[in-house]
Amino acid sequence: MNSLVDELARVVGADHVLTAAGEQAPYVTDWLGKYRGSALAVVRPGSSEEVRRVLAACHEAGAIVVPQGGHTSLSGGATPDGSGNAVVLSLTRMNRIREIDPIGNTITVDAGCVLARVQEAAREAGRFFPLSLGAEGSCTIGGNLAANAGGVAVLRYGTMRELTLGLEVVLPDGRMWDGLKALRKDNSGYSLRDLFIGSEGTLGVITGAVLKLFPEPRARAAAFVAVPGLDAALGLLAVVRERCGDRLTAFEFMTDVCLDLVTRHVADARLPFGSLPAAAVLVELSDTDGEAALAERLETALVDAVEAGLAEDAVVAQDGTQARAFWRLREGISEALVRAGKAAKHDVSVPVAEMAAFVREAGAAVEESAPGARPVVFGHLGDGNLHYNVLRPEVASEEAFAAAAPALTRRVHDVVARHQGSISAEHGIGQLRVGEMSGCKSPLELELMSALKTVLDPQWRFNPGKLLPPDMPARRPVE
Amino acid sequence: MNSLVDELARVVGADHVLTAAGEQAPYVTDWLGKYRGSALAVVRPGSSEEVRRVLAACHEAGAIVVPQGGHTSLSGGATPDGSGNAVVLSLTRMNRIREIDPIGNTITVDAGCVLARVQEAAREAGRFFPLSLGAEGSCTIGGNLAANAGGVAVLRYGTMRELTLGLEVVLPDGRMWDGLKALRKDNSGYSLRDLFIGSEGTLGVITGAVLKLFPEPRARAAAFVAVPGLDAALGLLAVVRERCGDRLTAFEFMTDVCLDLVTRHVADARLPFGSLPAAAVLVELSDTDGEAALAERLETALVDAVEAGLAEDAVVAQDGTQARAFWRLREGISEALVRAGKAAKHDVSVPVAEMAAFVREAGAAVEESAPGARPVVFGHLGDGNLHYNVLRPEVASEEAFAAAAPALTRRVHDVVARHQGSISAEHGIGQLRVGEMSGCKSPLELELMSALKTVLDPQWRFNPGKLLPPDMPARRPVE
Repeated sequence: MNSLVDELARVVGADHVLTAAGEQAPYVTDWLGKYRGSALAVVRPGSSEEVRRVLAACHEAGAIVVPQGGHTSLSGGATPDGSGNAVVLSLTRMNRIREIDPIGNTITVDAGCVLARVQEAAREAGRFFPLSLGAEGSCTIGGNLAANAGGVAVLRYGTMRELTLGLEVVLPDGRMWDGLKALRKDNSGYSLRDLFIGSEGTLGVITGAVLKLFPEPRARAAAFVAVPGLDAALGLLAVVRERCGDRLTAFEFMTDVCLDLVTRHVADARLPFGSLPAAAVLVELSDTDGEAALAERLETALVDAVEAGLAEDAVVAQDGTQARAFWRLREGISEALVRAGKAAKHDVSVPVAEMAAFVREAGAAVEESAPGARPVVFGHLGDGNLHYNVLRPEVASEEAFAAAAPALTRRVHDVVARHQGSISAEHGIGQLRVGEMSGCKSPLELELMSALKTVLDPQWRFNPGKLLPPDMPARRPVE
Repeated sequence: MNSLVDELARVVGADHVLTAAGEQAPYVTDWLGKYRGSALAVVRPGSSEEVRRVLAACHEAGAIVVPQGGHTSLSGGATPDGSGNAVVLSLTRMNRIREIDPIGNTITVDAGCVLARVQEAAREAGRFFPLSLGAEGSCTIGGNLAANAGGVAVLRYGTMRELTLGLEVVLPDGRMWDGLKALRKDNSGYSLRDLFIGSEGTLGVITGAVLKLFPEPRARAAAFVAVPGLDAALGLLAVVRERCGDRLTAFEFMTDVCLDLVTRHVADARLPFGSLPAAAVLVELSDTDGEAALAERLETALVDAVEAGLAEDAVVAQDGTQARAFWRLREGISEALVRAGKAAKHDVSVPVAEMAAFVREAGAAVEESAPGARPVVFGHLGDGNLHYNVLRPEVASEEAFAAAAPALTRRVHDVVARHQGSISAEHGIGQLRVGEMSGCKSPLELELMSALKTVLDPQWRFNPGKLLPPDMPARRPVE
């Protein structure tokens, strides 16, 4: 493999091939510190052409390849295993905004561009790129594509899949597929684009993308609403959607446990109510213009919701500062969770209408698995997506809870399955959930995925151990 | 094959297996009367389970299968060839609305449901299903999915792909894939759904789907706008989008030639202007409420557009009747074209910013190929999608023009290729365009499609001769 390392250095320059353990550290340990791997080399190409040559060399050598963007995966999706065999392909040097087309409303970028930089470039051109999530200051577009990122604006704008028009991909054999088309409509064959989106680096490496831009929303209105529970929150969602249509851009739910945690652990998080409600929703509207009218529309809808018993109290933000304070309550939850100790985390989705039943049944399952454990439930209600975290019971030791967590997760995921849900709404399967794939997918679906994998990566060299269990039958074709 | 026909009769009942030429006629001749095929049998299953058993029997017998919905394809996508070997699988008996979920905003339907019926069912539930196109009274959801249908509301709501959450599919080997999930977010593996959408019946048979519903837009405003040309129309699009954001639901462009044709050939089509403009745009806005405010918003934007020289005249509809009259001008074009004689038709897309250049260059190519031929250009400008039809030069005979048409089409499609466009924006490849696939796709892309086809349909029995040229190399895996 030394000759491979030499060849990689010839392609990208010796400075961009990291082989010393110290240099490799940030590339082989995931962001939560949960997975620690090692690598034959970390390679940092500077262009699509260099990626092509790197992958051709890896193909030649039969090397394992682990593609990596901002390395912010919450499921260990871009961290190599401990074998030391993998070439980690880091794309962060590829950070060019290639083109902005304000007429066609598209932006073409290198896959290594950081999400926040793309948002900013769109804004500078008087446009809006809506993908928004906690890691936006570090995560890259390539990673967003590999994991089909979600975030807080999916309700209105869709996931990364819906925001993408075209892709440039280097295949495991080093050939480049140029699907970098800026077309709104193209019905001329199978959607290869959609096969690569969400494939978590297991089918090749996305090196560039054409993304959709939108008119910049110049008016915003936000409210923090106390609700009696999840059923009421769903009723509130229906009222707001009916009244506000597409203006509704975020509808974020959180329980009393979340609010209690965040106000205790995050210094600048303050509730806009006198007492702790059973649950709360952060509602955000946006429009091209007319901020006063927007706030009034939101207020009217909320007054009606209070009268209908769907909400107990509501505060409409008077200005941007107050709106940011509301978002601080929502976004501080993850931070508060870290400070509150280890939690068993789940990123699930169920059909929107079944969310209340899901929370009830999952709560019962948690209580049986770990009596006294506290579910910390928040998420994107309009998408049916809940971050269902479970905090250690105060009576249990860290060790005892860690030992009980896998069984607890299994129970929670059983409830997900009962409601035809997904065990990964937006974080991806990665290595965190790969062991659960056989439990949550039908044998036929696994067989099809396996066969598709084999078409593109016959030797299963790309991101092994992620998404697809390595021992899956690689049958092909389907018979 | 007689034993296959007997078996099919056992599965679906003898009444639903048509073998007589007279009975088969509507199933083997396409809607434009361009393709006339024949079939071993036309089979009309009544349920997904019957589809499964029919396909298992066809698999066993090694029979060719041609899936068919409303049989309204404009590219011969669902018409069998003349060999008489095919089992035509017509899904129109499968027309149940399975479920409407007003909380989750989803509708689950049989694939054989007619589109207009689905729109109506949504409306009855106080919701809105936005897919809308000329054939909506006959085309089925399964066909819409197979061709990834577009239509007049793509600008705001996306194509059929974006409107779909889950699918139920019977594979060529008779196994059923249950992907009928009603999830807004699900990142747990490759998107099989998106592989089947747009695959034109070549990978299996879609038997059911979960579709997205939206709040019903209760307010609408429409305007008919005279513009100096396509460049100005694109400028107008930018102004309207900037001012109206998501309220913009349709932006339909048509040239003077279209307007002249439609007013001459369609009895109730009347221009709202005194004289014929160089081109016109039909703009439609919609919102949850506030019709007066919506009309005012549209008016203000149009006044500014006129002042900026982007529009020459504009009439905002005073009521629904006038709005329908505007739509009649747009929708009458196809009818007028039929009456005006044979046309060479093209359904192309290019990046929005390149549309004006495309029209100029295509016009020059047409003039060279068939001097005096008249391009009749209309389409969904906001999507970069033009229906680029070319009417016979008055001096040429029908025969001479028919003989010149293939070369003319090649020239037009060369211009499409030069602008990184697509030769099928929304009608699909079918058999009409299958011969052009090698010219418009890279060898690598064809190889990948071919390999994916082979995974799902190893014997290439499903809808042969459509989408993928039958002589394509069926290599797999990619090496």
